[in-house]
This record gives sequence, structure tokens and C-alpha cells, in this order.
Amino acid sequence: MNYRMMGRFLSLIIGIEALFMLPALLISYMYGDHKAVTAFVLTICFSLILVGILRFYSVDAPEAFYAKEGLACVGIGWIAMSLIGALPLFLSGEIPSYLDSLFEIVSGFTTTGASIVPEVEKLSKGILFWRSFSHWIGGMGVLVFLLAVIPNQGKRGGYTMHILRAESPGPDVGKLVPKMRDTAKILYLMYIGLTVLDIVFLLLGGMPLFDSVCTAFGTAGTGGFGIKNDSIAGYSPYLQNVCTVFMLLFGVNFSCYYLLIMRQFKNVFKDEEIRMYFCLVFGSIALIAWNVRGFYDTIGETIRHSAFQVATIITTTGFATTDFDLWPSFSKAILLSLMVVGACAGSTGGGLKCGRVLLLLKSLHRNIRAVLNPQKVQIVRNNGTRISEKVLENTNAYLAAYVVIILLSYIAISIDGFSVTTNISAVLACFNNIGPGFDAVGPTCNYAAYSAFSKLVLIADMLAGRLEIFPILILASRSTWTHR
Amino acid sequence: MNYRMMGRFLSLIIGIEALFMLPALLISYMYGDHKAVTAFVLTICFSLILVGILRFYSVDAPEAFYAKEGLACVGIGWIAMSLIGALPLFLSGEIPSYLDSLFEIVSGFTTTGASIVPEVEKLSKGILFWRSFSHWIGGMGVLVFLLAVIPNQGKRGGYTMHILRAESPGPDVGKLVPKMRDTAKILYLMYIGLTVLDIVFLLLGGMPLFDSVCTAFGTAGTGGFGIKNDSIAGYSPYLQNVCTVFMLLFGVNFSCYYLLIMRQFKNVFKDEEIRMYFCLVFGSIALIAWNVRGFYDTIGETIRHSAFQVATIITTTGFATTDFDLWPSFSKAILLSLMVVGACAGSTGGGLKCGRVLLLLKSLHRNIRAVLNPQKVQIVRNNGTRISEKVLENTNAYLAAYVVIILLSYIAISIDGFSVTTNISAVLACFNNIGPGFDAVGPTCNYAAYSAFSKLVLIADMLAGRLEIFPILILASRSTWTHR
Repeated sequence: MNYRMMGRFLSLIIGIEALFMLPALLISYMYGDHKAVTAFVLTICFSLILVGILRFYSVDAPEAFYAKEGLACVGIGWIAMSLIGALPLFLSGEIPSYLDSLFEIVSGFTTTGASIVPEVEKLSKGILFWRSFSHWIGGMGVLVFLLAVIPNQGKRGGYTMHILRAESPGPDVGKLVPKMRDTAKILYLMYIGLTVLDIVFLLLGGMPLFDSVCTAFGTAGTGGFGIKNDSIAGYSPYLQNVCTVFMLLFGVNFSCYYLLIMRQFKNVFKDEEIRMYFCLVFGSIALIAWNVRGFYDTIGETIRHSAFQVATIITTTGFATTDFDLWPSFSKAILLSLMVVGACAGSTGGGLKCGRVLLLLKSLHRNIRAVLNPQKVQIVRNNGTRISEKVLENTNAYLAAYVVIILLSYIAISIDGFSVTTNISAVLACFNNIGPGFDAVGPTCNYAAYSAFSKLVLIADMLAGRLEIFPILILASRSTWTHR
Repeated sequence: MNYRMMGRFLSLIIGIEALFMLPALLISYMYGDHKAVTAFVLTICFSLILVGILRFYSVDAPEAFYAKEGLACVGIGWIAMSLIGALPLFLSGEIPSYLDSLFEIVSGFTTTGASIVPEVEKLSKGILFWRSFSHWIGGMGVLVFLLAVIPNQGKRGGYTMHILRAESPGPDVGKLVPKMRDTAKILYLMYIGLTVLDIVFLLLGGMPLFDSVCTAFGTAGTGGFGIKNDSIAGYSPYLQNVCTVFMLLFGVNFSCYYLLIMRQFKNVFKDEEIRMYFCLVFGSIALIAWNVRGFYDTIGETIRHSAFQVATIITTTGFATTDFDLWPSFSKAILLSLMVVGACAGSTGGGLKCGRVLLLLKSLHRNIRAVLNPQKVQIVRNNGTRISEKVLENTNAYLAAYVVIILLSYIAISIDGFSVTTNISAVLACFNNIGPGFDAVGPTCNYAAYSAFSKLVLIADMLAGRLEIFPILILASRSTWTHR
């Protein structure tokens, strides 16, 4: 392992994080929350000291940087970011336990949106902003941001691909343009553009500026932290619909937006993942609207709530406008299944990802064809191009890791004695970065009741889910830490 | 497709089934249950007519018989067997609906043991016998039985391998001895031997002969139909322990028994699947016994109930001595996870199978190693021998099919409105051929409350689970039915 190079990356991540805390510090100062101001200042100072130490350690770092280092870097980077990001919540005294603060900020960075705060409206503005901003930072990835803003560090710059691959969700991460740095820049520009558009639409609906910005952060990162106790339920139908539309937009593969900007409309409309995503969305809305038809007064309201909840679950955002835990079993079953599927690859959403589900179905279909025609070589195509066996293998391994981690986590948190539904949906909601589950962790409840051990398990699940398992799994492998 | 050859196989299956009904007919006659006698006689006559028609149709069947035909043959054979096997239950009037009769007998043949009968003690002896006997027939497989008893039909006899592969559970079905027919014979002899041993041990504990035979059938097939309303709970601790031991024995890969007979003890003790199986069994018993320590009076009773329930779930039998639905969440989580894992490949048990889980874990580990050392070719070994990529691919495809079918079935049966736990555990219990689930389908309840549509879904799940998905999935593929 190239520890020095990793030290350099770590110093960059921590430095950027300190920079990202400045707006929250400013807001705390404006609202006169002295405790929060002190907490942010202390955290920033601590971060800068760490940066200094790491910089000193990492001078003359060798260039060699492989996929292994890329993965470990992302894993350690995210853990460090979370440990430091939790400090303001804890030091300000607004969340009395450090473990709870860590849970909350990991939930933020991983865009999960699972909360242990019983009444978010009691938090100060600066802390609320930091909480929501963490969604926005985590959504597109802090390392992708780094790639976009820092000058190329290595001569060959080969490591950038490893890092982008490790931090971006999806079975097969590609470049938009030949240079990785430009790809990262384009991704962030589109991300910022869409976020600003969201804020504008929310402001047009009469939402206050602070609320608009925080809600847009939660939507853009498909995170789900609200700044009101009732999440989005208290806002007007127009604002709820804006959220629905933007949640769905942020669940789309960002490379599609690039294609749209490049006027390659055909390629977008033909994209199999996009088709699957929107088929699932509209199919689920129709089925749920039919299933809950008696629950609301008008057809419009029924469709609005159905659409909002489908969007919030499939994009793994986790906002709520109604308590879907009270819906009939059939609607719950659809939502639970959408939790597993998730949004598109290359979006800010979590879950298995539509693209990966598509590959799994195709490779399954290939196996059946292989039995029927054993003499024929069967290949798997996506949008007309052949998928390599390596990607298929990784996709299948991903599913295996997914099932194993969910089962083990479910057993581990069951020690606390909550119901089967609570535990299964808690693990699914954390691992898939959704936020609310069913029963005791439903949309109107929170995760505070779980024991410290269970919270640690769920924290690991959130990180493993956001980083797609391997960057975290690799940290647990002995051979990662042995010298070549 | 070689339809004539399939017709010949179908005629053999139906013929054998009619033969298998004779003991039940005899018992009904002895106990003077006239309705049951009539029902069996009518079914046997109907079967013989069908056999005649199929025989007439299948004269001069061409020899060509490939994996595709083998799979389709097993799929159709099992469906035909179930449709006919349900007739005695329905015609005798003891189960008033044909769909319920079909559910019951599919549950029997697939060794699931999920029942729609509220009070089994009200059924007549002959019907009870047929119900339990169906477990025994389905456990080792009716087609494997056919292979063992009928003279080689084809010159090349190549089809026997395709059929044994399609009907026997596990990721990589091998032969014990060079000739398939001899392998099938050895398997059935060991199966009969173990069943007789079980009956003897039950008789020694003072269980009546009829009860012993039926209980042994349920144990041997890892089925789980009891002949008492309280399943095994009413029998003495000795008898319960006998059941525990024999359930665990029938969950072991039968090739291990062959190795034991051949005095190759080392190979058995070194077998990775066996080790994993017994580690899971003893680990789970210890954890559950610790978790339910306050529930029973003595340590002995606690361990007895823990061991029985672990054995009944991991081997997918489904007997019960206590209502584990009342146990704490942690124990339930362990049981639910064991439902997914299941018994050894090549046993009569269901689930994913330990061997397959082992392969999935190994292929996952291979993927991590490949990231750490991209330049090295990584191979997967089991018991020292290399596993082919084809088998790994199929194993991964199996997991994908497993997850997809469970999710879709779960959504489908949720229309009936039962709780999330009920629906998830019902699908898992049927698909993994276990029987009882949690909540409304717990050990003290049954499946009668589900709608006709849900019962059909669960019937399909039971068949797909017993035949390991592909023989059923292939029937739904259009290209199976198009001429070459």
C-alpha cells in the first residue's frame, strides 16, 4: 500500500471538509448561535491541524497508485470525513452523544436520511444547514469534487479513474469525456445547475430561502433530512410536486443529462436503464394509487401522495408527505421492493441500481438460453454494446455481498428485540441509503431506540451501501495491509 | 423438443405414482374409509387410462434427448404428478376445494409441509398416509427413482444424467459411481435404509407404528407434515430428540454416506460443506438457547427445543415442538436466515443449500482478491478441486433468480393484505420448502386464509424451490416450445 499517497488524499479530503463547514459557520454566526459557532470553529481548527500533520507525513509520496489504493482511499476518506463531520453536532451539545452525532452525519454523507433526532425543529439553523449540506456533499462524492478542483497530482494521473470508479455508484462507471478531470467537472457543474434550478422552483412556490436551500440539498443528494418535524408534509401541494419531480430527476444517470446537453436525444430515449427506471416509477405509482384509493379525498391527492412516496423510495431519498406505514400491505410490498432496486447507476441515489438489476436479469436470461442452446456462445448486451464478463462477474458478486451483508446485519440488530419488520426494513433502509423503514423505524419514527451496537452496525451498512460495499469490505481484508 | 420421449417419461411418472398410491389405498380399505377407497381407486384408474394414451402416443420416440428436454421433463412431470396426486384428497371430500388439495399435495411432493388443513387429526388414515408418503417420494425425487428401477430406455442412456441433474438439488450434481443407474440405486438404497432406521428408533420410543412411519416419511423427505394437530409437540422428549437427529442426518449430502460406507472417513470430515452445515447448526443452537433461556424450566428443555427448531428450519423440514413465533427477535432472525441458507446440496432439504452459499462466498472472496492483485488469475476451489467457471456462473444466476422470484412473489401475495412479516415469511417458507413461517403463517397457524391467486403463486414457488428454479423457469420460455 502506498500509505503516503493515501495520506495526501486524506489531507485533501479533510481540508475540503473544513472549507465546506464555512457556510454553516457563517449561518450559525448570523443567527447568533454561539455554541454552534464555537463547535464549528473548534472542528475547523482541529481539521487544519490534522491537514498539517498529514501534509508533513506525505511529502515525496511515490506515484504508484492502483485500484487497491483507490478503493482503500475512498473507504478511509469517508470514515475520516464522518468522524470529523460529527464533531459540530456533538460539540454544540445539540446531539448529546458522539455516537448519535456520528450516526446522524454518516446518514447525511451517505444520503440516507435516517435520523436519531426526535424533533429536528429544535436544532439550530447552522447545524440544520450542515446536516442538509452533508447530503449534497455526499451525493456526488467528495472525492469526485476533489478530482474536479485540484490540479493533477500525478504525472500519469491514472489514479483518478480508480477513485472515480470507487466513489461513483453503478456497475460500470465510464467517462463522459476523455479526461477524468473534465468528466468530474462536468458532473459537478450539472449537479450544481440542477440544484439551483430546484431552489428556484421552490422559491417560486413561496418556500423561504433557508428551507428551499436545505430541501434542495436533501433532494439533490437523494438524502432526505428534512428541517421540519413532519418532513415535507406541511408544505403546499405545489412544493411537494416540485420535490417529486426533482427527486426523480436526481435519480437519473447524470450521463443522460450530458447526452441531452450534447443534443443526443435518441441515445437518451433508447437507454434501457432509463426506460426501466421510468417504467418502474409510473407502474408503481399506478398500482399504489389504485391500492390506496380510499385513503385520500380526491384523485389528485391520491396520485400526489403515491407519486411522492414512490419517488422518495425509488430514488432512496426518504422525505415523507404521509405515513406510508399505514398503507395496505400491497403498497408496502411495492415500496419495500423499490427499496431494493433503487435509482439509476451514476445518479446520487442508492440501492442495487436499475442498471445493475438489468444486468442481473440479462445474465440470468443468458443462463437459461445457454441451457436451451448449449452449443451457442451467449453474450450480454446493454444498449447494443457487449458487456464484459468481468463486469457481469462483479455485478453477480455484488448481489452476493448485498444479500450476505443484509442477512448478517439483520441478525446483529435483532438482539435489540424489535419486530421482524422493523429490523428488516431498518437494515434495508440504511444499506440502501433510504432513511425511513416500516413499523418502529417508519416515516414518523426514528432510529434513536436502537442500542449503540446496532447503531454501529447500521453506520457500517450506510457506508457500505453508499460506497457499494467494496471500499469498505477491502478495509477488512488482511492482504490490503500487507506490503507488496 | 422431443415431445414423444417426454410423453414416454410422463407415462412412466404417472404409472409409478399410481403404484405409490396402493399402500394408501390398502390403509384406507383396512380402516374402512369407503370414500377414501373410492377416491384412490378412481385416481388410479384415471392414471392408468392416461398412461395408456401416453404410451400409445410415444411409440417410436426418437432417441435425441438433451439438457433442455431433461429440464422440461422434470418440470412437466412434477406438475402432472401434483395435479393427479391432489385427486384423492379432493375426491374423498376431506379437502373440499381442488385448489386446496393441490396446494396440500404440492406442499407434500416438494417437501414443504405448508398446510391448509386446520385440523389434520380429522383426516382419514389413508389420506394422512398419502400426504406423508408424498414427502418421501418427493424428497429423493420420483425421476431418480425411475432411473433406479426401469431398464435403460435409450441406447446411449445419456438422458439419465440430464434428469438426475435437473431433479437433484445442489450447484454441481455428480455421480457416485460411473453408471448413472447405479448412482440412483445407491441413493435410494441409502434413503430407504435411513428411513427404516428412523422408524425403528421411533418405535423403540413407544410411538405407534402408523405414527412412526408417517413421521419418518416427513423426516426423511425433510417435509414436515405431521399427523397431529400439535405436530411433534405431544410426543415424548426422547421421540423429539430422535426427530432432531434424523432431520439433521437427512440434511446431509447423501454422497457423504456413500463415502462413509466406502470407509473414506477423512474425505467426509474434511468436506467443507459438511463442516459449514454443522458449524451453522451448533452455532445457531447455542445462540438461540442463550437467547430463549428464560422461556423454559430446565436447561435440558431449552436445548431440546432450540435444537429441534434449528434442525427443523435449516433442513427445511417444518415440524414444530414449540411456537417459535413467540421467541425473541434475535432467535427469529437466526431462524429466518437459516431458512435462506438451507441444508446440504444432494440432501432432501431445500433452501439455497450450504454448498451454494459456500460457492457464493468464495466467488465473492475471489472478486476482492482480484481487485487486490489484478495481475493474478484467481481460481475457486472446493475441497481442493477447482470449480469450473460455468458452475460459478450458474450459482450466481441462481441467486439472482432466487431474489427476483422472492420479491415478485412477495408483491403478488401482498394483495391479500396480511402483514409484512406474514407475507415475507410465507414466501420464504414456501420457496425454501420449509412450511411454517412467522405471524399469520407461524407454526400454530396455516395457509388457508390466503386467496386462490396467492395459493397459486405459492404453489409455483414451492415447485420452483424444490426443482431449483430452472425446470420451472424453462417452461415459461418461448424458445423451449419452438421446433429446432
